[in-house]
Amino acid sequence: MTSKIINKIDKKSGKAPGTVTYIGKNNLTKVSIDVIDFTKNSIEEFSAKNVEEIFRFKEKKSSTWINISGVHDTEIIKKIGAHFGLHPLLLEDVADTNQRPKIEEFKNELFFVLKMIYFDKKINEIRTEQVSIILGKGFVISFLEDPGDIFDGVRERIRKGKVKIRNSECDYLAYSLIDAIIDNYFIILEGIGEKIEQIEDEVIKTPGPETLKDVYSLKRELILLRKSVWPIREVIGTMLREDSKFIKKETREYLRDLHDHTIRVIETLETFRDMLSGMLDLYTSNVSNKMNEVMKVLTIISTLFIPLTFIVGVYGMNFEHMPELSLTWFYPSLWVLMIIISLGMLLYFKKKKWI
Amino acid sequence: MTSKIINKIDKKSGKAPGTVTYIGKNNLTKVSIDVIDFTKNSIEEFSAKNVEEIFRFKEKKSSTWINISGVHDTEIIKKIGAHFGLHPLLLEDVADTNQRPKIEEFKNELFFVLKMIYFDKKINEIRTEQVSIILGKGFVISFLEDPGDIFDGVRERIRKGKVKIRNSECDYLAYSLIDAIIDNYFIILEGIGEKIEQIEDEVIKTPGPETLKDVYSLKRELILLRKSVWPIREVIGTMLREDSKFIKKETREYLRDLHDHTIRVIETLETFRDMLSGMLDLYTSNVSNKMNEVMKVLTIISTLFIPLTFIVGVYGMNFEHMPELSLTWFYPSLWVLMIIISLGMLLYFKKKKWI
Amino acid sequence: MTSKIINKIDKKSGKAPGTVTYIGKNNLTKVSIDVIDFTKNSIEEFSAKNVEEIFRFKEKKSSTWINISGVHDTEIIKKIGAHFGLHPLLLEDVADTNQRPKIEEFKNELFFVLKMIYFDKKINEIRTEQVSIILGKGFVISFLEDPGDIFDGVRERIRKGKVKIRNSECDYLAYSLIDAIIDNYFIILEGIGEKIEQIEDEVIKTPGPETLKDVYSLKRELILLRKSVWPIREVIGTMLREDSKFIKKETREYLRDLHDHTIRVIETLETFRDMLSGMLDLYTSNVSNKMNEVMKVLTIISTLFIPLTFIVGVYGMNFEHMPELSLTWFYPSLWVLMIIISLGMLLYFKKKKWI
Amino acid sequence: MTSKIINKIDKKSGKAPGTVTYIGKNNLTKVSIDVIDFTKNSIEEFSAKNVEEIFRFKEKKSSTWINISGVHDTEIIKKIGAHFGLHPLLLEDVADTNQRPKIEEFKNELFFVLKMIYFDKKINEIRTEQVSIILGKGFVISFLEDPGDIFDGVRERIRKGKVKIRNSECDYLAYSLIDAIIDNYFIILEGIGEKIEQIEDEVIKTPGPETLKDVYSLKRELILLRKSVWPIREVIGTMLREDSKFIKKETREYLRDLHDHTIRVIETLETFRDMLSGMLDLYTSNVSNKMNEVMKVLTIISTLFIPLTFIVGVYGMNFEHMPELSLTWFYPSLWVLMIIISLGMLLYFKKKKWI
Amino acid sequence: MTSKIINKIDKKSGKAPGTVTYIGKNNLTKVSIDVIDFTKNSIEEFSAKNVEEIFRFKEKKSSTWINISGVHDTEIIKKIGAHFGLHPLLLEDVADTNQRPKIEEFKNELFFVLKMIYFDKKINEIRTEQVSIILGKGFVISFLEDPGDIFDGVRERIRKGKVKIRNSECDYLAYSLIDAIIDNYFIILEGIGEKIEQIEDEVIKTPGPETLKDVYSLKRELILLRKSVWPIREVIGTMLREDSKFIKKETREYLRDLHDHTIRVIETLETFRDMLSGMLDLYTSNVSNKMNEVMKVLTIISTLFIPLTFIVGVYGMNFEHMPELSLTWFYPSLWVLMIIISLGMLLYFKKKKWI
Repeated sequence: MTSKIINKIDKKSGKAPGTVTYIGKNNLTKVSIDVIDFTKNSIEEFSAKNVEEIFRFKEKKSSTWINISGVHDTEIIKKIGAHFGLHPLLLEDVADTNQRPKIEEFKNELFFVLKMIYFDKKINEIRTEQVSIILGKGFVISFLEDPGDIFDGVRERIRKGKVKIRNSECDYLAYSLIDAIIDNYFIILEGIGEKIEQIEDEVIKTPGPETLKDVYSLKRELILLRKSVWPIREVIGTMLREDSKFIKKETREYLRDLHDHTIRVIETLETFRDMLSGMLDLYTSNVSNKMNEVMKVLTIISTLFIPLTFIVGVYGMNFEHMPELSLTWFYPSLWVLMIIISLGMLLYFKKKKWI
Repeated sequence: MTSKIINKIDKKSGKAPGTVTYIGKNNLTKVSIDVIDFTKNSIEEFSAKNVEEIFRFKEKKSSTWINISGVHDTEIIKKIGAHFGLHPLLLEDVADTNQRPKIEEFKNELFFVLKMIYFDKKINEIRTEQVSIILGKGFVISFLEDPGDIFDGVRERIRKGKVKIRNSECDYLAYSLIDAIIDNYFIILEGIGEKIEQIEDEVIKTPGPETLKDVYSLKRELILLRKSVWPIREVIGTMLREDSKFIKKETREYLRDLHDHTIRVIETLETFRDMLSGMLDLYTSNVSNKMNEVMKVLTIISTLFIPLTFIVGVYGMNFEHMPELSLTWFYPSLWVLMIIISLGMLLYFKKKKWI
Repeated sequence: MTSKIINKIDKKSGKAPGTVTYIGKNNLTKVSIDVIDFTKNSIEEFSAKNVEEIFRFKEKKSSTWINISGVHDTEIIKKIGAHFGLHPLLLEDVADTNQRPKIEEFKNELFFVLKMIYFDKKINEIRTEQVSIILGKGFVISFLEDPGDIFDGVRERIRKGKVKIRNSECDYLAYSLIDAIIDNYFIILEGIGEKIEQIEDEVIKTPGPETLKDVYSLKRELILLRKSVWPIREVIGTMLREDSKFIKKETREYLRDLHDHTIRVIETLETFRDMLSGMLDLYTSNVSNKMNEVMKVLTIISTLFIPLTFIVGVYGMNFEHMPELSLTWFYPSLWVLMIIISLGMLLYFKKKKWI
Repeated sequence: MTSKIINKIDKKSGKAPGTVTYIGKNNLTKVSIDVIDFTKNSIEEFSAKNVEEIFRFKEKKSSTWINISGVHDTEIIKKIGAHFGLHPLLLEDVADTNQRPKIEEFKNELFFVLKMIYFDKKINEIRTEQVSIILGKGFVISFLEDPGDIFDGVRERIRKGKVKIRNSECDYLAYSLIDAIIDNYFIILEGIGEKIEQIEDEVIKTPGPETLKDVYSLKRELILLRKSVWPIREVIGTMLREDSKFIKKETREYLRDLHDHTIRVIETLETFRDMLSGMLDLYTSNVSNKMNEVMKVLTIISTLFIPLTFIVGVYGMNFEHMPELSLTWFYPSLWVLMIIISLGMLLYFKKKKWI
Repeated sequence: MTSKIINKIDKKSGKAPGTVTYIGKNNLTKVSIDVIDFTKNSIEEFSAKNVEEIFRFKEKKSSTWINISGVHDTEIIKKIGAHFGLHPLLLEDVADTNQRPKIEEFKNELFFVLKMIYFDKKINEIRTEQVSIILGKGFVISFLEDPGDIFDGVRERIRKGKVKIRNSECDYLAYSLIDAIIDNYFIILEGIGEKIEQIEDEVIKTPGPETLKDVYSLKRELILLRKSVWPIREVIGTMLREDSKFIKKETREYLRDLHDHTIRVIETLETFRDMLSGMLDLYTSNVSNKMNEVMKVLTIISTLFIPLTFIVGVYGMNFEHMPELSLTWFYPSLWVLMIIISLGMLLYFKKKKWI
């Protein structure tokens, strides 16, 4: 639980700007480089063994998508950067997995940083993974932190020769990747929505200290999620507003759709937040109501018996001259009196609506 | 109660953009297609048995309103889209009932997504239904999720040959439909207003755990309502600001009125929210005040008798040498003493304003 | 108390836009029409018996102020609208007393909707009344919901031939009416300010459940007031920013002053709101402090006597072999012991600052 | 304490705009008029006995600063206004001490309203005083509510022939006056800062009901201060943004500095507000923690003795057949048992971390 | 802890604008002046003994970085200002360590004020130090409050002849200094992040009054940090938006990166704030839950024994005629009865889920 915040913070202070330094949880898996190169009619797909294999696609007229899983090997990033003529600040950001989502336009490329969100079943927690997408002339390069992604749908569509994606140029491909990332948010949101409803039930029916911890940890997750998602709206909003030579007119209508989806993600997050805070109020009130009920009943029992105990105490005194003690009818009368007192108090409490 | 949030979330991640997929509660009722075609002087009204029947209205010079109840049959949507030349992204949004209210201008049509709100008496809850309105050249197509709508007023006005609506072109017809949806919000708001006043009474007079749940569920309803209504302001604001070839100058003044209504809906919602949160504070204070009162009285009773019980305990001791025990006047004096102590304490509590 | 919110909500859903329908509390008093017509040198003032009497002022060169009290007789509104050439949407808004304050410029007239606020002594509550002001060429028409208004000051100035108002044209007259409405807000604010100070005293000195209800109902009043006043700032701001042919340059400087007053009204409202919420915190803390004090004292009394009761209980036991019972000095020593225990506990409580 | 809010509200509703009416606490001290007239080389300084004495400075080429203490004598204001050609709305605002800080540009003058803040030692409270500054061609007129001001520093600099202020024109003089007012805010803020730290100490060490009242009254002061200071930022921001013929280019750089100071004042106020509300949370938690501690200890004492009291009660019963009563070893064993029970309970409480 | 707020407030009210007055904690250490002068190929580095030594660099063509530690010796500041032709208001701000971060463009120089943040281990607290950076033609002058800085990385890069910094002009040098300051924030944030996680653990596992004080003091630190960092975003945003002759086109891309970093700092601060306030809620609920548990158990114990004490009290009475007393089986039966009553109550409590 703790690792998440710390990880958001940079650790390279003091280095020169533009230095490519890997920042993230040290990942020792081998970096894999997957290439899909396609034109309207042909398609070539393979995994590159070394980075040099992909260099030839720079000049090729076809559309190329190079997907690199793993950014801990900074040598690979530097080589690609040098060959494809990418800006040093861009390379620095690719290797630093603490970037916030953003879009930056450089001379030769458009650069996106996004956060892919997935539910890690091992640690039962939501995790984010940084995805950098570089849209250049005739190629799209995507960098992922770890192997395994959510782009299978896009790959399928390319392979199956879906008209739209094969006919379009690289900007549509980049759009498709971003679309896949945003669409994936909805699955995460659905999961959170289910959790919220579960907790809601718990809050209403069986509120306990555990419920509180659940609400709190969900709140915490929403805070971190929000931090990842919020800037994406800005990113896509900027793409919509500003003309960019990298994005063609036909693709713009799709961007508008994407923008709409992002806003829906954010609105759902906000709704969740509102609901959680409403739930917290309900929880607090519920718990304190229950507690109050308990205390009231207990106190009423005590209150009933304390005066009676006083009375029997009186006739437990050992004075020589207590005329009541020798009256035969006094003992049963005392019982009657005590029962009357008890009933009177109970009636009074009833009338006051305390019981 | 739970279905509402989940339903707001998309389930089609991974598909290509522009794929028409029905997203919503599976609805097996037959889709009904109702057509009203009118000019200044003539009117034709019928229910189409199949979608091909309505194709001829595309070219016809008259104004045509095609109302389709049911969006689960995606074939119908695709056919209409193909024939009337609608944009694929638009068709996707029609079939996906999780859209947020929006306006989008395409080359051949203006596309509105709105949320119709109605009170479902069966489940005693507010429900929303998505309404898509497509304003093209010479026709308006409206898609509804379920049969049954709130457009009867508009139909009446067309049938009765009301000058304004029959003389105007399709943009005024589209405006009338939107106006009917917004006007309907006021009825819902009125219902909520009545509920709020009812709860307010309850909070002041008989606050109980049930009241709290009522406040909470009303709050929840307001959160979801707000999500449906808020973007509509933006939609109509955009329509007002930007020139659109689909909306004529004469209609603009009516749009301004619509904008005003939407703002009134939102302001009323905000006022309700403020009142609810004020009520929650009042509830909490009221409940805790009542509880405090109870506890105070009970504690005062205990406090009165505990010292007296001690005193009688003293003379219940069995020491052989307790000179008081053989004094005849001691027992009655002890009663006097205990009465004095009780009255003293009561006076003290009174002076301190505790009772 | 309840009528206020409901009344804010529209009841005419389903009618065509532009239909003049009275919405408000049915008012059966006769509509009165008062006319003041004046030039620099002459003045004519009378009450019209029927609406046709005022028609002649449309063409007259002089400045005319027509004040109509009562908007429930929609026939009169329609007749005036037809004769003076007013827009149908404007007429609809005049008859619907649920409008929010706004300004709308039509071809022939500038249309203001404002809310007059007054304190209704009968029901001991603040009430709002809708005032519609129509500024046309050479005439000002004002519609009020009920007879009785706050324009006497303006009338006096016209009658006394005050240079400024008689020399100016109709835009200055309209400004004077709005100025009178805004100025009146300060009186209401002053009243609320006094109430707040009264409650503040109560909160500090004698907080009780009644105080809470007062704070809550004041808060509610502020919410509703705010809703009435807030949009007026926008109205006057719009008037200031945008050039309108209906408002002359000389009058603009006065508008700036008006804008300033409105901001002052709003800022005072906000200050009141902040103070009320601060007061609520203070109230809650005060009440809980007092309660805590009471409970502490009561609990201390119980705590003092419970151990002593145990001790005397010990020597109330009837064992045959309790050597202490036959020791002459034991009984007085026990008293000494119990006094020492009590004092010790009191000292401990004192040291701990509990008493 | 109460006078402050009421005073903020206008009392002249119904009068014509531009009527010069004194609004404030009736001040009977004589109005004093102090004049400093200077050029680069000469200086003339005197107190005028009547308002006519200052009329000659209107035409004079030198820079003139006329400082008028007291705005309750509206005749003087009217005379000055007439002679120097000031706008009637401006004169109305000078006499009305409830203005909010603002800047208004008229044809012949630039008009500032500011709030001077000082700590009134007599009533131990922060007070505000309205300062109106009129910057005309060759003269600056400043109006103060009461005698005594914070402009001595400015006077000294003029007298000492400081190069900058003597060389510059009237706009720099007006700037210097405003600068003196803003600089004075820092002293007030420092005082509040000290109070806050004092209260912070109290909250942490000895929180009591008095602390709460202090926090509340400080909060109240901050609300009122904020109301006075906030609009000043706007005033100076407007001066910076808009070109005014009254302010020369050289002076603008100084205005930027002033703007910066105002923002610092506001930020400090906001920081104070945040700290106060944090303190309130801490106070509430601290008080309730302490209370809880007390109640816990007291309840533990009761809980310890109540079971023991029951046990001794058992052997105080008078049954003829209670075999334990005649066993010699039973009484001491009972003591042992009771000690074991007590220790057991204490250990249990200890284990549970209740004591 | 207290010094921090007071220090934020100015103490020079009344002085003329542009007066260079030292405001800060009086620092008696000697001012040190360090110069690095470099071109593409050469580098000169030395510590100046007096301020006159550095005058020659004004005219020199090379890039010069003059770093001055200590701003309490206003003579040095004045001399440098006079020689390098700096604006008097700028000099005033250099000596006043209470400035808020800002950027100001003067005729001959661009002036930055920033806050360097470091963790002072002696007082175990975060401290801020003002850094003023003056970017002129061919030189950068930086003023620090105390000796010791975070610019060693920059110095290293210059010394090692790193291509970028040696090739670039002074704007890149100034950028590098600001970059070093911002990068340093991340280290501080990381430290705070660790503290937050530590407190989070405490809140969940062992919440106590100390935890509360920790949360409060962390909150306080965040408020002050925010005040230092927030305006920097504005500063760099302004640098990005506005064209400045002091900053070349190539450097702009680096500024964008810097802007991004600042936003990340601020977002992290906001996230921390959200988490802290969530933690406070959790703390309050946790503490009150624990307290409630304790009170409930204690009250249950009392409630169990009070009725039993009453029963044994009954048979402790000394009436002559109590038939039960002489029944042999009554005493053991009474024990059975009391055990049944206790078990009954325990079962009831169990059923009600109180224990």
